[in-house]
Amino acid sequence: MSEDLQVLKKHYELAIVGCGPAGMAAALNAKIRKRDFILLGSGFCSPKLSKAPQVDNWLGFPEIGGEELRQRFLNHLKEQAINIVEFKVTNVYPGPPYTLVGKDQSFEADAVVLATGVSVNKLFPGEADLLGRGVGYCATCDGPLYKNKRVAIISYEQAGEDEANFMADICSKVLYIPYYSDLKRLDPRIEVYKGKVKGIVGESTVERLDVGEEELPVDGVFILRETLPAEQLISGLEMEEGAIRVNHKLETNLPGLFAAGDCTGQPFQLIKAAGEGGTAALQAVKYLDNLKSPDPKVPIL
Amino acid sequence: MSEDLQVLKKHYELAIVGCGPAGMAAALNAKIRKRDFILLGSGFCSPKLSKAPQVDNWLGFPEIGGEELRQRFLNHLKEQAINIVEFKVTNVYPGPPYTLVGKDQSFEADAVVLATGVSVNKLFPGEADLLGRGVGYCATCDGPLYKNKRVAIISYEQAGEDEANFMADICSKVLYIPYYSDLKRLDPRIEVYKGKVKGIVGESTVERLDVGEEELPVDGVFILRETLPAEQLISGLEMEEGAIRVNHKLETNLPGLFAAGDCTGQPFQLIKAAGEGGTAALQAVKYLDNLKSPDPKVPIL
Repeated sequence: MSEDLQVLKKHYELAIVGCGPAGMAAALNAKIRKRDFILLGSGFCSPKLSKAPQVDNWLGFPEIGGEELRQRFLNHLKEQAINIVEFKVTNVYPGPPYTLVGKDQSFEADAVVLATGVSVNKLFPGEADLLGRGVGYCATCDGPLYKNKRVAIISYEQAGEDEANFMADICSKVLYIPYYSDLKRLDPRIEVYKGKVKGIVGESTVERLDVGEEELPVDGVFILRETLPAEQLISGLEMEEGAIRVNHKLETNLPGLFAAGDCTGQPFQLIKAAGEGGTAALQAVKYLDNLKSPDPKVPIL
Repeated sequence: MSEDLQVLKKHYELAIVGCGPAGMAAALNAKIRKRDFILLGSGFCSPKLSKAPQVDNWLGFPEIGGEELRQRFLNHLKEQAINIVEFKVTNVYPGPPYTLVGKDQSFEADAVVLATGVSVNKLFPGEADLLGRGVGYCATCDGPLYKNKRVAIISYEQAGEDEANFMADICSKVLYIPYYSDLKRLDPRIEVYKGKVKGIVGESTVERLDVGEEELPVDGVFILRETLPAEQLISGLEMEEGAIRVNHKLETNLPGLFAAGDCTGQPFQLIKAAGEGGTAALQAVKYLDNLKSPDPKVPIL
């Protein structure tokens, strides 16, 4: 993967996490406002939009195909010279400035717009409780901690195989549980388990993986999803009915941290996501301006 | 004007007040959800959009002209057989059901989406205080109360001349203060004042109109604007920083009354307005469904 590695700056004014309609609309406004920002994506931008045979309520463009509209969105970003940086955020440390951590590097941002969408996959029982105590989202980051230990890697994406292969050199045992078909390039030392995980079990740290008929002893469990559940990304982020709690200004409970789109809850609609993305970016710009010259009356027209 | 009179139903499930981007996006979703709704406009739908030489952040359609986009919006409504009903709401009586009052007729709606935009004109000093006590927004509605009395009509639109002519038959004196050029068809009994109004004065009811150099004695003042300030439309509506106070679900403090677009505050942007309109309509649909079969878990996906 290292050939894809992009050299990031150490610091940005604004980080936009997610490249669906909310993230894209946020990036457009950040660009128009000439801010120092980065737009982060991981994998395909908006599979939901791509799969929509027809979109009926993108005002002004009736009955447009989902994939056609998605291409138009991507082209709009290109015309504005906005780059989508492939960077999967595995952790956000509190700020401001916030520290956004990925597999290979990390950077700081004074303000953050979370536009991470909704994860279609629910958390596994025990996942939230044992996060940071054996449960993690980036195997290669935490690898050294599991030298000569047993880990399970639950992966929804092929990229998980790279992480598993990396761990095979370090751990005494690597159990790989794919939630997709087509295994490609797994190290022969890795044991593949093709069942479903019922839960992660342990008193104070991870002890076992419950796969229904039995419980497999493990010291660590890594879960590799395309999008992380937002509340797992950053500690202290308040949720409401399974979504990030925001007010009408798209502010979360953490200063300088905004959220937009499906991750703020229903309705899960394109126009809602785009509208919130655009607004969240402008609110972030206002927040950044206030950091520099505190004045609550700065208009954001 | 009576030839334009449309016969409305006595009752709708949902009334959408305003035909700018927020109102249009709301109407699209109401139509897609097959609700019994009415979309109300008064005059030109979205002069602001029409005057924008170029819109840069309507995602997917870079550098589109404002008027071109507006025409596309209107055509989208036409394709969905959504009619914009010319009806200027002068008052909303509390509900639910809410009663929406216009010049010639009124009707009920179980839920309302206010998408009235921002009035570029500030209230006149004294206007809010004396509302309903000599200050009104529909001269012909209240005409009989001013028989043989003196009224002033401050009008931002030519339609004010019809109201003034009507009042000339009733009142002892009609003073007409146009905030536009091109007077067309005023009754010769009407006195035209071409200055600016500084304020409306009176102890418990309207007594005088302050025009700077002098105060003119009047018993009533009617102010005819294209859009009414939302807080004047409906009593008890909570405002915040000059905008309608809404939460992330676009709920106001009044049950079944939602607001979307510029009337909910900054940023005054197209994509924010459209996103809020779409969302407010779906929240209204959820509210209507709950009226019929109370269940807080009805999804609005």
